[in-house]
Amino acid sequence: MSDTPLRPEGEQAQAEELYGVTRRDIDAVRAAMDAGDIGRMEGIALGLHAADLADLIEGLSPAERRILFAAMGPRIDPQVLAFLEETVREEVIGLMPPADVAAAVTELDTDDAVEVVASLDAPVQEEILGNLDAGDRVVLEEALAWPEDSAGRLMQREFVAVPSHWTVGDTIDFLRDEAEKGGESLPTEFFDIFVVDPAHRPLGMVSLSRLLRTRRPVRLDELMDTDIDRIPVITDQEEVAHLFRQYDLASAPVVDDAGRLVGVVTHDDVMDVVHEEAEEDIMRLAGVQEDDLYQAVLNTSRSRISWLILSLIGLFSASLVIWFFQGTIEQIVALAVLMPIVAALGGNAGIQTMTVAVRALAVKELHGANAVRIIGKETLVAAMNGLALAALVGTVAGLWFWSPGLGLVIGGAIMVNLLAAGAVGVLIPLTLHRLGVDPAVASSVFLITVTDTVGFAAFLGAAALFLL
Amino acid sequence: MSDTPLRPEGEQAQAEELYGVTRRDIDAVRAAMDAGDIGRMEGIALGLHAADLADLIEGLSPAERRILFAAMGPRIDPQVLAFLEETVREEVIGLMPPADVAAAVTELDTDDAVEVVASLDAPVQEEILGNLDAGDRVVLEEALAWPEDSAGRLMQREFVAVPSHWTVGDTIDFLRDEAEKGGESLPTEFFDIFVVDPAHRPLGMVSLSRLLRTRRPVRLDELMDTDIDRIPVITDQEEVAHLFRQYDLASAPVVDDAGRLVGVVTHDDVMDVVHEEAEEDIMRLAGVQEDDLYQAVLNTSRSRISWLILSLIGLFSASLVIWFFQGTIEQIVALAVLMPIVAALGGNAGIQTMTVAVRALAVKELHGANAVRIIGKETLVAAMNGLALAALVGTVAGLWFWSPGLGLVIGGAIMVNLLAAGAVGVLIPLTLHRLGVDPAVASSVFLITVTDTVGFAAFLGAAALFLL
Repeated sequence: MSDTPLRPEGEQAQAEELYGVTRRDIDAVRAAMDAGDIGRMEGIALGLHAADLADLIEGLSPAERRILFAAMGPRIDPQVLAFLEETVREEVIGLMPPADVAAAVTELDTDDAVEVVASLDAPVQEEILGNLDAGDRVVLEEALAWPEDSAGRLMQREFVAVPSHWTVGDTIDFLRDEAEKGGESLPTEFFDIFVVDPAHRPLGMVSLSRLLRTRRPVRLDELMDTDIDRIPVITDQEEVAHLFRQYDLASAPVVDDAGRLVGVVTHDDVMDVVHEEAEEDIMRLAGVQEDDLYQAVLNTSRSRISWLILSLIGLFSASLVIWFFQGTIEQIVALAVLMPIVAALGGNAGIQTMTVAVRALAVKELHGANAVRIIGKETLVAAMNGLALAALVGTVAGLWFWSPGLGLVIGGAIMVNLLAAGAVGVLIPLTLHRLGVDPAVASSVFLITVTDTVGFAAFLGAAALFLL
Repeated sequence: MSDTPLRPEGEQAQAEELYGVTRRDIDAVRAAMDAGDIGRMEGIALGLHAADLADLIEGLSPAERRILFAAMGPRIDPQVLAFLEETVREEVIGLMPPADVAAAVTELDTDDAVEVVASLDAPVQEEILGNLDAGDRVVLEEALAWPEDSAGRLMQREFVAVPSHWTVGDTIDFLRDEAEKGGESLPTEFFDIFVVDPAHRPLGMVSLSRLLRTRRPVRLDELMDTDIDRIPVITDQEEVAHLFRQYDLASAPVVDDAGRLVGVVTHDDVMDVVHEEAEEDIMRLAGVQEDDLYQAVLNTSRSRISWLILSLIGLFSASLVIWFFQGTIEQIVALAVLMPIVAALGGNAGIQTMTVAVRALAVKELHGANAVRIIGKETLVAAMNGLALAALVGTVAGLWFWSPGLGLVIGGAIMVNLLAAGAVGVLIPLTLHRLGVDPAVASSVFLITVTDTVGFAAFLGAAALFLL
């Protein structure tokens, strides 16, 4: 972590200095490599926080990563593995002997260890697990048995749980004794003390700041907050994130089917989830996979083209509509000139509505209770914007081709298409959500299909009726 | 906060029960209002966590909100104001007498109080500030003087700072004494103790979990972490969020120009920022304002239409291209049928690239150092997907209109447009970022202008050359 103060966001050069690792650091490591000065390279790498070293490794080329790992190997902080992007991590683990990877995994908190191991391909995973000692192996295999993106994967198994008859003094003495024994049973950082019954079911929580301002003789069961949320292990991480955001939690207990405390989720894990889930929605709305920046060309190409081919369904159906009106276009070629405007305005307006709907669904602000009201509002907005755009484009088109009829026809078509866009912009995500399909993935393909076909049909149809 | 365990994500009905406030609660409040049973309505409202009551209020209509506030007024938990969406908050504050608002603001931690007051219109703000006592007023006015979205706005002024010669025992005794005096100088929750020099400049931090596992005689200057980031008050909140995510911080010190500790940012504030900033990017990419769901129809309509009108620039320039090739279309009307496919495929592929670039810029993974490599990668991906789509669409078009020439021309045009889309998909966001413009706001308008005009020009131009 850098000791220099942060500077406000400004020009690019400044912004790049804000973080622990800068372009200059990367260049310095490169220069040391080129000069064959392994000592200097190590000096830079070892001076960095693990999160920054991970950034530096991501900034290097695969060949440079190979040089770095060949030279430093096991001297690289194991925490680095937890901070790397998934694709880079897989590459880097391929550069390390399995025994070194196993040793690194043992050093990590359980939540980080699970994340690292889970991201590996099955054979590599098996090999790493085989290199662990029995105890660590069981813990990891248990955690890997939970579904991806569940609280069970997110939680760490190290936490502080004490009986309810203990006092503040008992608890502090226990922590000090454990720390003196080496502190291996304690998590690296913790924020709350969990009070449990004899069956290990959580009864309440005491935040550390509350514990610290209370006199030694006070019993925890007088002090604890009993109004707590117990998160079942299979809860989806998105639900966990909502809970943390809603109640500003620092940590929360995770329980098994019998209600026993089995782990703890902390705010830093949730911060990553909030970031990840929003990122996922942004990317899915555009038909892109996350992690895209670091994937090989072939993978990126393959993951993106399926969405493009899907979008062809909509495009060809729009083409069919135009094909149906070929005769009309042959007589008034101005229609071909103007028709993309009608379709695209509908598409753009629909994407505005759809984006609001997709995010409202994700953060649970759109649901059965207010769907009708929101569709009503979107229809009104579409009507108002439709009127304004119809007037604007109708006037321009009427003047351009010196035909008031054409102006009226394009204006009417825009109005119709914007109303359709407003309605389906809410209905498509809502329907996909009800069907259990992620609305971010497929909404825009369906939407564009509707706005293209409605746009072309309304415009060319009206032209065929009124202008011929 | 509900005491029942969370259930995993499943069907809609289940999902709505996960939170403190459910559709049933809202219906129950409505039923109580209709029955004129104010007591029952209050019973439900007062049983909720402030964050849940805020959700309930957001779920009511403006008329119902008026009834609720008329009945309960000052008995509503002041914290609710901090949890409300901005537009609903403004409405609700309009329902309360200024003295009640001032009393509520006084109850909040400084960061929440600033957020509430800052979101009000200037005259309302003045009125509320005038109703505060002098001390609170000065604190708020100082905070309001910092730029929006700065660390100064995000931080709270309540924190625990102690001299470096203190021991663990001194610190714990101090916290207990302060708590017994009423604890008004202490923050409600805190996660770290800040060690300061006599000029109040931070020397280091001690996390509470570290303090708790250390014996009483140990001095803080032996215990503290001195490798800390001091955040200047004017730092942008996005930078602060990066810092927390990068180093998994629970809290961090904010310093003034002289390096003195003036406030502390905590993880829950940052969680909201991470959420907000990602949300902002999603919305801006689609030309939508945040908060859109709760805004009045007129405001939503006005904020969205400017983006639609902007997009007309691109659409009309594409129309000009088609207009230029009118003669060609009159001779081969199949061109009008197929041309939207060429333009839209380029647009869709470009949006994929652009989305990756915009997010990579936001999270600082795209910068001068790797721009060339990423443009190279995107060009390769575009070339591969271009080839595949060209073959697919070329074959379909060639068979449809029984013309191998047309198939070749559309295939070539798709190839050209995808290459253009890949290049400008990175270059546009990068250029806007360099110019200091938020790439999320304007990128897509420019991108679609390029892919539409290139698409139409390549397709119609090639047709004019080779098919006539």
